[in-house]
Amino acid sequence: MLSDLEIAKNCNLESIETIAEKLGIESSDLIPYGKDKAKVSLDVLTKNNATKPADLVLVTSINPTPAGEGKSTVTVGLAQALQQLGKSVSCALREPSLGPVMGIKGGATGGGYSQVVPMESINLHFTGDIHAITAANNALSALIDNHIFQGNALNIDIRRITWKRVVDLNDRALREVIIGLGGVKQGIPREDGFTITVASEIMAVLCLADSYDDLKLRLGRMIIGYTVDDEPVTVKDLAVEGALTLLLKEAFQPNLVQTLEGVPAFIHGGPFANIAHGCNSVIATKMASKVSDIVVTEAGFGADLGAEKFLNIKSRMAELNPKAVVVVATIRALKMHGGVPVADLDKENVEALLDGLSNLKKHTETIEAFELPYVVAINQFTSDTKKEVEALTSWCQTEGIAVAETNVWKDGGRGGLALGKEVLKLLEEKQTRFKPLYPLDASLKEKIEKVATTVYGAAGVDYNKDAEEMIHRLTQLGFDNLPICMAKTQYSLSDDPTLLGRPKDFRLMIREIRPSIGAGFIVCLTGDVLTMPGLPKQPAALQMDIGADLEAIGLF
Amino acid sequence: MLSDLEIAKNCNLESIETIAEKLGIESSDLIPYGKDKAKVSLDVLTKNNATKPADLVLVTSINPTPAGEGKSTVTVGLAQALQQLGKSVSCALREPSLGPVMGIKGGATGGGYSQVVPMESINLHFTGDIHAITAANNALSALIDNHIFQGNALNIDIRRITWKRVVDLNDRALREVIIGLGGVKQGIPREDGFTITVASEIMAVLCLADSYDDLKLRLGRMIIGYTVDDEPVTVKDLAVEGALTLLLKEAFQPNLVQTLEGVPAFIHGGPFANIAHGCNSVIATKMASKVSDIVVTEAGFGADLGAEKFLNIKSRMAELNPKAVVVVATIRALKMHGGVPVADLDKENVEALLDGLSNLKKHTETIEAFELPYVVAINQFTSDTKKEVEALTSWCQTEGIAVAETNVWKDGGRGGLALGKEVLKLLEEKQTRFKPLYPLDASLKEKIEKVATTVYGAAGVDYNKDAEEMIHRLTQLGFDNLPICMAKTQYSLSDDPTLLGRPKDFRLMIREIRPSIGAGFIVCLTGDVLTMPGLPKQPAALQMDIGADLEAIGLF
Repeated sequence: MLSDLEIAKNCNLESIETIAEKLGIESSDLIPYGKDKAKVSLDVLTKNNATKPADLVLVTSINPTPAGEGKSTVTVGLAQALQQLGKSVSCALREPSLGPVMGIKGGATGGGYSQVVPMESINLHFTGDIHAITAANNALSALIDNHIFQGNALNIDIRRITWKRVVDLNDRALREVIIGLGGVKQGIPREDGFTITVASEIMAVLCLADSYDDLKLRLGRMIIGYTVDDEPVTVKDLAVEGALTLLLKEAFQPNLVQTLEGVPAFIHGGPFANIAHGCNSVIATKMASKVSDIVVTEAGFGADLGAEKFLNIKSRMAELNPKAVVVVATIRALKMHGGVPVADLDKENVEALLDGLSNLKKHTETIEAFELPYVVAINQFTSDTKKEVEALTSWCQTEGIAVAETNVWKDGGRGGLALGKEVLKLLEEKQTRFKPLYPLDASLKEKIEKVATTVYGAAGVDYNKDAEEMIHRLTQLGFDNLPICMAKTQYSLSDDPTLLGRPKDFRLMIREIRPSIGAGFIVCLTGDVLTMPGLPKQPAALQMDIGADLEAIGLF
Repeated sequence: MLSDLEIAKNCNLESIETIAEKLGIESSDLIPYGKDKAKVSLDVLTKNNATKPADLVLVTSINPTPAGEGKSTVTVGLAQALQQLGKSVSCALREPSLGPVMGIKGGATGGGYSQVVPMESINLHFTGDIHAITAANNALSALIDNHIFQGNALNIDIRRITWKRVVDLNDRALREVIIGLGGVKQGIPREDGFTITVASEIMAVLCLADSYDDLKLRLGRMIIGYTVDDEPVTVKDLAVEGALTLLLKEAFQPNLVQTLEGVPAFIHGGPFANIAHGCNSVIATKMASKVSDIVVTEAGFGADLGAEKFLNIKSRMAELNPKAVVVVATIRALKMHGGVPVADLDKENVEALLDGLSNLKKHTETIEAFELPYVVAINQFTSDTKKEVEALTSWCQTEGIAVAETNVWKDGGRGGLALGKEVLKLLEEKQTRFKPLYPLDASLKEKIEKVATTVYGAAGVDYNKDAEEMIHRLTQLGFDNLPICMAKTQYSLSDDPTLLGRPKDFRLMIREIRPSIGAGFIVCLTGDVLTMPGLPKQPAALQMDIGADLEAIGLF
């Protein structure tokens, strides 16, 4: 069997100009990066204003397990299927972070015959967007520490600096550090910490801004800490929002690549969905929506995280109108939610499958709470048995849930035709506008409790003292009208990663509240979730190499 | 008067394909990054082996002063002049670091009508090479700390880890830090520090490797620290040289841009010359040398730093054969070396000029010690008076030193024709091969003392205890056959930045010795020189912005 990388390398790519032509994007609006990727000028957004925006389809999933769900693979496969069905379609996806690529995943560009390419470049440095964000973030940190070193005119309290440095790596040793050591010439000693770039506020800002002016305004609004008198200090107070905008100028342009079947794919922005808002950039989704009839997009992890934030944060803020949702599940993963350990997944177990469906059921209820139509996609594995498939199909019929099997890993778009047809059926039914779960003028606690109970199924919410105080503080500052961005483990509906299936009677613990005023949301950290991952005992990096023909080894 | 950025923006660039065509580089070997820059495949190096390598011309200067010397401007202007004189010529230059761009310089791409373009992109992220080096360096750090966290099979002593993290910024607060705080789940606490990326060993490795195989071998040889038993631990011991090579795959390809007059310019690799070896990549110099008849290249800061290392390290290691040297000086800077403060530079002062010539004289003696022919380029300023110019010219005649005035800032290549003709004269005289200052089999102390006395004019060298011990250690390990890479202030021939002109009777203090076995040299730190610069009170970043037409503001 060919590896993903071998499949990707054997594919004959169309030139990026040809892909752009499909979308009516002129070559003067295309900034090539190599022969197979390009950035696209934002001028495209203001041309041909007569066209109506595309139908937006969101792909989400059940809670991920080590068994694998293949959400990105289904997203790409669905877009390829829709193209085979004669539709003008594009994808809007996130850029992979180097942290998981070097750490555990090895890559994040779909799989088999449903990949975006060039996979090697996309998985490594791509067009440099994430590096530009890292540079802008850390330039701001250096400017903050320099401001203090040079006299601290703004009276910043070094114990109250909330702006962290970043690296786009999994590096647990940088979670908590002390900087500025070494004496009077080396800076001012203080506690600091690093987060992974994809969890940074600048990543969120880049993904939510809808113009350069908006980008600069948002960067200026970011709070970097508090004065000795406990007043917020913003980037605008430091007068460096212009410099940060300049550093992000190229990174703000969406990247265009293609799938293995030549479907145009916009890959832009890459916030994690557990510790950040989990969606590709607004500007890429809007651009894709401008130049095609259907846009298939993806939000990270399960519907409790990515889809909730895609709808309550991104879609509301950017006035996007998603028309249909695909919920991806696999029989293997459902069996894990039903209690089967990884080692036994190849054995038929209908009972465990039926138990595990409680997880899928919760996520479909969530989509229903947003008043959106959906279809469940069952991503096939060779280990699925006939009895298991029948049990699942019959359950869906009983529940009145539309379902389609996909085999896009093996067959590309052809393996997603059934799903494609189901999606087209939903789009033709012309649904009304989706409804956010909570109004913006609800209190912060009301918002948190709404998501916790309706989406996670929690019995209630507890707050520790620091979180209580920050909620009070942010309410006083008038920031309580912002949406919330929950940071929670992806593995469970609860804040305990070991509780699979559909946990009940649990209470959600809010450990910390962080305002992201530039992004325009309030981050709520639950459980033990960390904004800087660690590397596993055997990192993927140990397998990576460059081959005799300079081909990448160890990306998969 | 137009700013550098305005001049650069008003220029009509040729397409990068046209520039490549001039050099006989086929479009299949060109990887475009936007319309005006490209990476070039290393395949070019193995094609058309019949051609003879270009004549290599090195541009260096006196010790820099705040008055400005314009070495990059003269380098670009000379190449443009040689093109006007009908020669097939290209430049080989370094990539600017974001640290000084955000800090003090605002840009580093020449000036006036002698610039490389696109200046905005080159000064900011360019093609991402330095970001890739940052990522590779910090991935290695994360892998080291993870190795220790996961059981430390290699028995690495956490007090003896010499591998530092990097950011490509001026950030003094990161010079000395403590990482791994926060308890048992967050890593192992230890002392660490950040250097600026352009001073990192990976930057040096990328600049000195001559093939992908060599790159991987060098990365594998890098020492990251020592075991509890004080044995060196290398990247190869950690088995991650493949991953690092993969991360540097694109960064290793030279970048092609152009000057304002359409001279092809290879800009690749950017080590500082005070704290690193100060030259663009070997691979770019070799490529330029393959595709043109004359290559004009530059080494950083004065001849005591950049030129010394260009000759003793880069040229020897890569078997390059430079044929002629240009030593850049300005009347203003020479007056500063003669004791005039910045505020009084506009006043005529022949006496101070003649005093300051001692600095120029020392550098010409250095070039003579390498047995290379040279010409002094006097880069004109409007404040230069007729008497000053006459005094300088007459001094050169008395000393038997070839000299040419240039006005390349104002007139582009036309302003460098006199210099161009002098350079051609030197090349036609067909000089013999340059002679390194010391043999590789001399002891480390002999090498240090040779450079200190012959190049800097020191009376002798002192070593502190740590340096003494490390020299002993490296000699035991068999690394004493490597060249040395001196880290010294650029402002003075001595290790005291306040001593201008030609200091005498000083002793050089060697404070620390750091082996860079991957790069293939031993770094010798003198005086107070730091491998992580700080920001000034008013960083250039405060002036930076993005304009209404998205043009960069504040780069100059």
